[in-house]
Amino acid sequence: MISFPLRQIRHSFSTIKPPVLTLETICSKLLKAEYAVRGTIPMKAAQIAEEIRIGQGSKHPFGNLTELNIGNPQIFGQPPFSFIREVLASCFNPKMIDKMPFHQDVKSRSKFYHSNVTALIGAYSESVGYRFVRENVSKFIKQRDGGNDVPVSNIILTDGASNGINMILSTILSNEKDGVMIPIPQYPLYTALIALRNGQEVPYYLNEDLGWQICPNDLNNSLKEARSKGVNVKALVLINPGNPTGQIFDEDALKTLIKFCYENRMVILADEVYQENIYKEGKKFVSMKKVLTEMPQPYNRLELFSFHSTSKGFLGECGIRGGYMEMTNIDSDVLAQIVKLKSINLCSNTTGQITTDLMVNPPKKEECSQETVEKYENERAEILSSFKKRAQIVTDKLNKMKNIKCAEVEGAMYAFPKLFFTEKIITEAAKRKMNPDLFYTYEGF
Amino acid sequence: MISFPLRQIRHSFSTIKPPVLTLETICSKLLKAEYAVRGTIPMKAAQIAEEIRIGQGSKHPFGNLTELNIGNPQIFGQPPFSFIREVLASCFNPKMIDKMPFHQDVKSRSKFYHSNVTALIGAYSESVGYRFVRENVSKFIKQRDGGNDVPVSNIILTDGASNGINMILSTILSNEKDGVMIPIPQYPLYTALIALRNGQEVPYYLNEDLGWQICPNDLNNSLKEARSKGVNVKALVLINPGNPTGQIFDEDALKTLIKFCYENRMVILADEVYQENIYKEGKKFVSMKKVLTEMPQPYNRLELFSFHSTSKGFLGECGIRGGYMEMTNIDSDVLAQIVKLKSINLCSNTTGQITTDLMVNPPKKEECSQETVEKYENERAEILSSFKKRAQIVTDKLNKMKNIKCAEVEGAMYAFPKLFFTEKIITEAAKRKMNPDLFYTYEGF
Repeated sequence: MISFPLRQIRHSFSTIKPPVLTLETICSKLLKAEYAVRGTIPMKAAQIAEEIRIGQGSKHPFGNLTELNIGNPQIFGQPPFSFIREVLASCFNPKMIDKMPFHQDVKSRSKFYHSNVTALIGAYSESVGYRFVRENVSKFIKQRDGGNDVPVSNIILTDGASNGINMILSTILSNEKDGVMIPIPQYPLYTALIALRNGQEVPYYLNEDLGWQICPNDLNNSLKEARSKGVNVKALVLINPGNPTGQIFDEDALKTLIKFCYENRMVILADEVYQENIYKEGKKFVSMKKVLTEMPQPYNRLELFSFHSTSKGFLGECGIRGGYMEMTNIDSDVLAQIVKLKSINLCSNTTGQITTDLMVNPPKKEECSQETVEKYENERAEILSSFKKRAQIVTDKLNKMKNIKCAEVEGAMYAFPKLFFTEKIITEAAKRKMNPDLFYTYEGF
Repeated sequence: MISFPLRQIRHSFSTIKPPVLTLETICSKLLKAEYAVRGTIPMKAAQIAEEIRIGQGSKHPFGNLTELNIGNPQIFGQPPFSFIREVLASCFNPKMIDKMPFHQDVKSRSKFYHSNVTALIGAYSESVGYRFVRENVSKFIKQRDGGNDVPVSNIILTDGASNGINMILSTILSNEKDGVMIPIPQYPLYTALIALRNGQEVPYYLNEDLGWQICPNDLNNSLKEARSKGVNVKALVLINPGNPTGQIFDEDALKTLIKFCYENRMVILADEVYQENIYKEGKKFVSMKKVLTEMPQPYNRLELFSFHSTSKGFLGECGIRGGYMEMTNIDSDVLAQIVKLKSINLCSNTTGQITTDLMVNPPKKEECSQETVEKYENERAEILSSFKKRAQIVTDKLNKMKNIKCAEVEGAMYAFPKLFFTEKIITEAAKRKMNPDLFYTYEGF
């Protein structure tokens, strides 16, 4: 980054000191997180994208690059919801609401938000989020799970789910012996955050032949092995529906996990951001919270953190960065510490908070005209059926290809195919000191 | 939080295990951050606010509580800028822009944003932020400082300044011996973040009698003392204009700091979020970046992080959580690590990114009609003159009070008075095992 002529270097050699911050002096945990998010393929992709951007893309047999390594639906044409965007627009302009070219229902909702909060949008909210949104999240969970009241104090609004997961891992991981069980395959957030917090990742493998379900034996073995190495395993992450594996876990699977975690003194982090993205007939999403609270003592005492987001589901509002986390059975002193951690970072962005309210509190017939409700329902149905159709197409096409096999995508937004390589590719890859999958990917360039 | 009848406890005593997460098992660094943000007074205030909320406020001689411990201008009636809010509203509704009840200039700006980005607002941007916003930030800095081009790769868009400061402290602090010099008085962000990262805070005292300026001798002594205790002091924080002390540092003060930091192998974090909030005649804001780059070698090689935000200045858009940081003279490998850290957390919220663009790229006569430019300028002048007037009133009133003295508020949004206590108060406070200032504050309740 710093460049100057050689002569000048010589001249001032004795006075210019080397930089204070170098790879040797910065936080070593940051370095450890390296390969979790900046693998060879994303780096190659970034290089190609830059070549295309500056007009040097002609060496490639394609003119643009489609990034499929992150769920970002609006970039592929998924439209945002009219009701949501119109309410947000009105929230930004309280004095103009009545002049906006929107339905009366949109105006009423925006006015309701403004009536609840002084200086909506523009002022910091409480660090944990607007109280009325947290109340609506609480009602949403109660209705979804058919359970008891959810204390508002158990809800914190976050800048997306990853922000909440970061906070909880920061709270749980105390020293380099502390570990977290994570599913493999996973998406890179968990390995990166665990490395940053200097913790130990304890992998448990999902079984591809069983449609990426969990094998209790494998769970036990992973835990045993980690403990034999002195790792203090404190938590288990479940991603349901799976990312990047697209499976849905049923009630029995969740019960098994709850018993396993309770008996082994672990808390659960339930990453449930795809809870609306269910495609397979006959399958449904059941929340970890619901299963947990319906279990007998002592299992219903298990400590649980659940995460949801406005980025996935049918909203797909990734850029807005909204979401919430629910904390169940958490010791009140610990909960106060988590609230404190949130306070240090101040409130989550208010646009995300309002969007979270719109997610958990969509237009309903008690509040809105039939027209508004139907429009919303239609937009939702269209998005979800489009996802379902595309999940089917992707799986079908992959399975028709030679030497590729892909488990059915039951939910979420991803397919995770298996590639069978010929001896020739494996040998060639070995010659270039690459894994066969990396070699295969590079050959496309 | 968990309550159940005593009989049940007895019955299942042998099976219900204590919680996994307790103050003994969670991250000890989180506990250490305790008093930095949850002091006795904010906790007392929160308790009173809750009493008022649930209708039990009648025991107090006031009916509502005004929280002055954080800069949150819109909650006290500062209006948001029409142009900014109207453009944001239009950004949320690309298909409706032409039907919105806004000026053509607002529509053009929104369309310009949409033409730059696919799925503006709704899709994740690059982790470091929209490229066009970073380009405009770069132009803004160049114009503000009258300096050279600013590489776009040195700019990262953040969710407010505190988010950027958090990232940089995470990068710098590697182990429990690493320290950061922070001004005292400061606001609680720095002590809290340093505690969370397990670092050492190294205080340097601002001199109240000199209008909260820095004394080079004190700087040297603080550093010497820290080093004698084995602290590896890696960075110094300067808040200019000061929070909560309201002073402005001139070019000479900044030069002294730069030399001090360069000679002593420290990088600088320049917290400049109040750079627009200048009230004292004859004083002006000069950025650390400007002074640094104009200094002779080797001092112009000092490593610097500068932070700005949409929350303060004249925008006061605290809830939106937008801002940027500029990295000067940072080793390219280290810069790549910081970009990686940002990537783990995904992009900053897009509303904040657009608001940052609107801050650095206000309506100008080359782009907009005279009407739009004048309206914006008038709104700005009104807000800034109102701040100036209020700063004056606060200082005057405080200084007219018996046993209170307050330095002139030159900038930012705070006054930091000194209270002189009588022997009687000091003795009474000692009896109750309180500091006199805490006792004085409690007596008001």
